[in-house]
Amino acid sequence: MRIVFSATQTKVQPWLEAFRVALPQAQVQEWQPGAAPADYAVVWRPPQQLFDEQPRLKAIMNMGAGVDALLEMRTPPQAVIVRIDDGGMAVQMAEFVCHAVIRYFRELDVYERDVAQGTWSFRKPRRREEFPVGIMGLGVLGQRVAEAVAHFEFPLRGWSRTPRQVPGMRCFAGAEQFDEFLAGTRVLVCLLPLTPETEGIMNRRTLGRLMPQSYVINVARGAHLVEEDLVALLDDGHLAGATLDVFRTEPLPEGHPFWKHPKVTITPHTSARTLRDESVAQIAGKILALERGEPIAGVVDRNRGY
Amino acid sequence: MRIVFSATQTKVQPWLEAFRVALPQAQVQEWQPGAAPADYAVVWRPPQQLFDEQPRLKAIMNMGAGVDALLEMRTPPQAVIVRIDDGGMAVQMAEFVCHAVIRYFRELDVYERDVAQGTWSFRKPRRREEFPVGIMGLGVLGQRVAEAVAHFEFPLRGWSRTPRQVPGMRCFAGAEQFDEFLAGTRVLVCLLPLTPETEGIMNRRTLGRLMPQSYVINVARGAHLVEEDLVALLDDGHLAGATLDVFRTEPLPEGHPFWKHPKVTITPHTSARTLRDESVAQIAGKILALERGEPIAGVVDRNRGY
Repeated sequence: MRIVFSATQTKVQPWLEAFRVALPQAQVQEWQPGAAPADYAVVWRPPQQLFDEQPRLKAIMNMGAGVDALLEMRTPPQAVIVRIDDGGMAVQMAEFVCHAVIRYFRELDVYERDVAQGTWSFRKPRRREEFPVGIMGLGVLGQRVAEAVAHFEFPLRGWSRTPRQVPGMRCFAGAEQFDEFLAGTRVLVCLLPLTPETEGIMNRRTLGRLMPQSYVINVARGAHLVEEDLVALLDDGHLAGATLDVFRTEPLPEGHPFWKHPKVTITPHTSARTLRDESVAQIAGKILALERGEPIAGVVDRNRGY
Repeated sequence: MRIVFSATQTKVQPWLEAFRVALPQAQVQEWQPGAAPADYAVVWRPPQQLFDEQPRLKAIMNMGAGVDALLEMRTPPQAVIVRIDDGGMAVQMAEFVCHAVIRYFRELDVYERDVAQGTWSFRKPRRREEFPVGIMGLGVLGQRVAEAVAHFEFPLRGWSRTPRQVPGMRCFAGAEQFDEFLAGTRVLVCLLPLTPETEGIMNRRTLGRLMPQSYVINVARGAHLVEEDLVALLDDGHLAGATLDVFRTEPLPEGHPFWKHPKVTITPHTSARTLRDESVAQIAGKILALERGEPIAGVVDRNRGY
């Protein structure tokens, strides 16, 4: 079995070594132009040339959870596209989102500003019942985040394309229930896949339906958000704050209003990083299962887009 | 049954009304000098005169979890002293501590500084196994915090005066196991009661035994920490950061080094606030149980100090 590996922004050698240990029966090489035909490609933002030169791939193993960029490329039609479906990312998402939810609920952002000005302030505690957290996207990551938010006893609502049932969560589905979901949400968390249907899903109209003084947490893709609409709603006071880990253009361009907006907290696409050990174990396990003809999790539906 | 109420820094009327609703059979009044003898006192930092004039109290219900200040007063010796043992505080503690642990583990403090300077930075993810969280104090609050930290899969250790068993936690007890507890701890969380034995427990010697680049979170009492020792260990680089909610003197005096220290995050004693509804329900329930002669939780051992 031959595996080619291609990942930008990644130190390649430790990954190759880890795959060789996990799959001693395989030949694992970094992809180079003109490489011999392989059975599997393990990729993160690979060049188009890889797919053009590897028409016989059985499967393309994406090293992240989001496959939106991959689906815009020309890939061999028979190749199964597989995404990471946890690989240590779910607990990281749970951490990142809970940190932001707690920071807003407990007004730690406000205390931080007060302390910077030398003020020892006293604020009336907020009521948890008035702080419902609404999660868009109820896949592996969304469900793990929901579990963590529930641990802190916040009211929970969820929205997904198709109906889901998640214990302890009020679930909404489809376009017809979207406004109702938004109207009872104080903290909106986006964990959706990026597809033509979800592009720009957070815009002036939808964010305007959230409860007054709401917060937005985007840990999915920058293109889910109409950035200028968010700024307008923060500036007119309808929204109280936003924590954004992803952007239309990354790195965030110099001079972009998010860099210095007092109600916006940004991080450099770090909410859930691909961890080597966990990812190699998961991808190797899936390759072995595919070789045995067994079903695996994380197979992408090319039409649905995730 | 007569109840007197005395609380500084608190709007009194809503509390009186809530107690009257919860205990319609009782006469509930704000304590004033010369008040008629009462059966119960519900207090937060009351004046000494209250106890001097109320020698026949059956019980003193403290509106917080910490009774260190109360035990330094002269109180009627037959009166049972009762502290809040959750009252909505445990989940708040869990929130506050998890927020700080996640912020340090995920280096969100560092990203924040980078973003303020317009830098889109990339940092190697830390390994969870290298980030053991050690909790001192394993009462109601300590155990609830442990549960929340465990939810994010951090290695957990705990230390208490007397041996305890907490699922998923490596437990240490007493002076003889204290150094071993410290030596394997990267984030030290203090949730101890303040007693003569625990005063100054976080000092140059003990904090110096933590793992290199450790963090300190103090949500108990300011006097647990020797403040100048913490600053020295932060400045010489052994400690990487501290989140402090409590201080030797509160409000923190103007010009205190904690206000502007780049490795210190301070909050104005807000980690777990006494919430009215939850506290009234708990205190009223305990008063009724005492009246029926039933055992209750949260009775303070005057000799032990908590």
